[in-house]
Amino acid sequence: MSVTHPAGFVAAGAAVGIKSTGKKDLALVVNQGPRHDSASVFTANRCKANPVLWSEQVVKDGVVKAVVLNSGGANCYTGPEGFQTTHAVAEKVADAVGIGAVDVVVCSTGLIGLTNDRQLLLDGVGAVHARLSPDGGPDAAEAIMTTDSVAKQVVVQRDGWSIGGMAKGAGMLAPQLATMLVVLTTDAVVPAPQLDTALRASTRVSFDRLDSDGCMSTNDTVTVLASGASGVTPTAEEFTAALSEACTDLARQLLADAEGASHEIAITTINAASEDDAVEVGRSVARSNLFKAAVFGNDPNWGRVLASIGTTSAAFDPADLDVAMNDVWVCRQSTPAADPTTVDLTPRHVTVTIDLKVGAASATVWTNDLTHAYVHENSAYSS
Amino acid sequence: MSVTHPAGFVAAGAAVGIKSTGKKDLALVVNQGPRHDSASVFTANRCKANPVLWSEQVVKDGVVKAVVLNSGGANCYTGPEGFQTTHAVAEKVADAVGIGAVDVVVCSTGLIGLTNDRQLLLDGVGAVHARLSPDGGPDAAEAIMTTDSVAKQVVVQRDGWSIGGMAKGAGMLAPQLATMLVVLTTDAVVPAPQLDTALRASTRVSFDRLDSDGCMSTNDTVTVLASGASGVTPTAEEFTAALSEACTDLARQLLADAEGASHEIAITTINAASEDDAVEVGRSVARSNLFKAAVFGNDPNWGRVLASIGTTSAAFDPADLDVAMNDVWVCRQSTPAADPTTVDLTPRHVTVTIDLKVGAASATVWTNDLTHAYVHENSAYSS
Repeated sequence: MSVTHPAGFVAAGAAVGIKSTGKKDLALVVNQGPRHDSASVFTANRCKANPVLWSEQVVKDGVVKAVVLNSGGANCYTGPEGFQTTHAVAEKVADAVGIGAVDVVVCSTGLIGLTNDRQLLLDGVGAVHARLSPDGGPDAAEAIMTTDSVAKQVVVQRDGWSIGGMAKGAGMLAPQLATMLVVLTTDAVVPAPQLDTALRASTRVSFDRLDSDGCMSTNDTVTVLASGASGVTPTAEEFTAALSEACTDLARQLLADAEGASHEIAITTINAASEDDAVEVGRSVARSNLFKAAVFGNDPNWGRVLASIGTTSAAFDPADLDVAMNDVWVCRQSTPAADPTTVDLTPRHVTVTIDLKVGAASATVWTNDLTHAYVHENSAYSS
Repeated sequence: MSVTHPAGFVAAGAAVGIKSTGKKDLALVVNQGPRHDSASVFTANRCKANPVLWSEQVVKDGVVKAVVLNSGGANCYTGPEGFQTTHAVAEKVADAVGIGAVDVVVCSTGLIGLTNDRQLLLDGVGAVHARLSPDGGPDAAEAIMTTDSVAKQVVVQRDGWSIGGMAKGAGMLAPQLATMLVVLTTDAVVPAPQLDTALRASTRVSFDRLDSDGCMSTNDTVTVLASGASGVTPTAEEFTAALSEACTDLARQLLADAEGASHEIAITTINAASEDDAVEVGRSVARSNLFKAAVFGNDPNWGRVLASIGTTSAAFDPADLDVAMNDVWVCRQSTPAADPTTVDLTPRHVTVTIDLKVGAASATVWTNDLTHAYVHENSAYSS
């Protein structure tokens, strides 16, 4: 399942003692080829974690043969010492697998500002390597969980080839990558440059449109590995469509498991002058604490939607905006329309539709509500 | 006191039935001259309330003779009907005072998207006009409260002249004016152009640096009226200093009364390449829900500070940032320094100091923590 569903991949997950809880905390995914094409995108945060600084160099040549991921510590803001730990882990994986360290992507997740125990990680690499298996996907997906309540996996099957994926992420979900680690695998034949184009097109409409709490992470990494083991070469359109499907599925799983959320909110902006405008408007609403608190309270407070739209640079007439919540048009021409009390916000899934009435572009941004549980989980996370 | 402390001003506040609670809900401030200089700044939100659309036109000639303010309804997103209500209120005030409607600033605050009862407001203007008095400042300050728990007033006394002020605002506090209504008065002789320069300089370093919840209001208005009744003409420096003092005092009062907050957080960025950089960095931290939730939990989570700094375009070296919380330098060179457990975050006042180490500019941005009470108040506000 998941990353080991496509042919050519083995994976494993194990508990090696990084997490004090004794849960699985180290994962390894290895591409056995025959091809080793790869593409990756990373957080846009300028303060990046050490594994990101390492991996950004590794992926430049389009060749990645293994991805090692640990939970229980982000190895972020840990200085040169932390970078050396990342490097040592890559070398250890390379030795075990029989490849070069420059072909090993390293990902870490967990608390920021804590130094990971290097020896524990190095010993752990041996343990997890010993368990590598064509059925290891689910264990790997479990080993990258932090505050996630469930493991996130996906399989997209096509005729003769497939895509598998796993993801972790439950908070700090924000733009230019929601906070998360994602590994995608495929046995299709897709040379690295095409893989890169497909990955960027897919993340742009999936992870990049997830904005759970407006906070951008330091460790975000999405890596796709292509083994070519199926021998099938899909068209660029076919492959991008399948990869987008996999990414969107994982993004929705992240949203569904966001820390403390009681609603999943899809904000769709229609008739915008451009897709960028539609995304900017959706994101502004997704970042309004007042709007998100109102949804938590099952209050269809469309005034807070308009107040958010007004902070953007998108093209629209402030006096001619329509807003629907769960398909009830509570605001027409920027004035009250349907009775808001007819909007039932008790179901977990909420839709907001914003009609800018100036063009033909549209986009959907996903977010969660702002809840007592979010405040609780994030006020107590490191203590 | 407050707006009636300087010579030349009368004010009143009364309960006229707009608020269902029977509390004071209409305020009037009249400048009796001999001069009627004024300056105003308004919300940067593109979706503005009707009173803002009206008042933006009124203030253009630098002459304002009266300000009428109601709580109990923002008259925002209420369309042409709402604009006509604002216009009718201005005309009624003008008739009662014996001035032109084009010299009457109108401010409204309360729920967005609800139509105010025009007749109630017009009758109310008569009632509040009948109570105008040189001692009416406190009543006026009370009449503009919404979710405020206390009235906000200020007096800055100088030799022979003074500044008075009142403010309302307790949520939706964000940049380019925290959500609020503010009326400032002075009996100094300050021609309108100089008043405008002084007001913009003062709001830039006070209200504009308050970012309680990242949400920008639709009704923000700050108006200063100068009667010249003292006959004293302070220098531009003297007047701007006094006005900044008044604005900063009111801004701190707004922060102290922010909805549901349990901490007041001053984020000071030092050694920035520019003041804009320092403000951008401070604001990014002030908008991090994760950081604000951590402060609520008394958790000195400096990693979340760095993660926020990394989202800005300010000049800095990601590997060389220092961060102190309550003067304990918990992060040096972007790595752990002093033991975070030595930081006591139980007091209400918290300071965060960020050293960018690239220049000589600095700025302080104020915010609050993200609490259960904030979520509660804003999930239940309109219901």
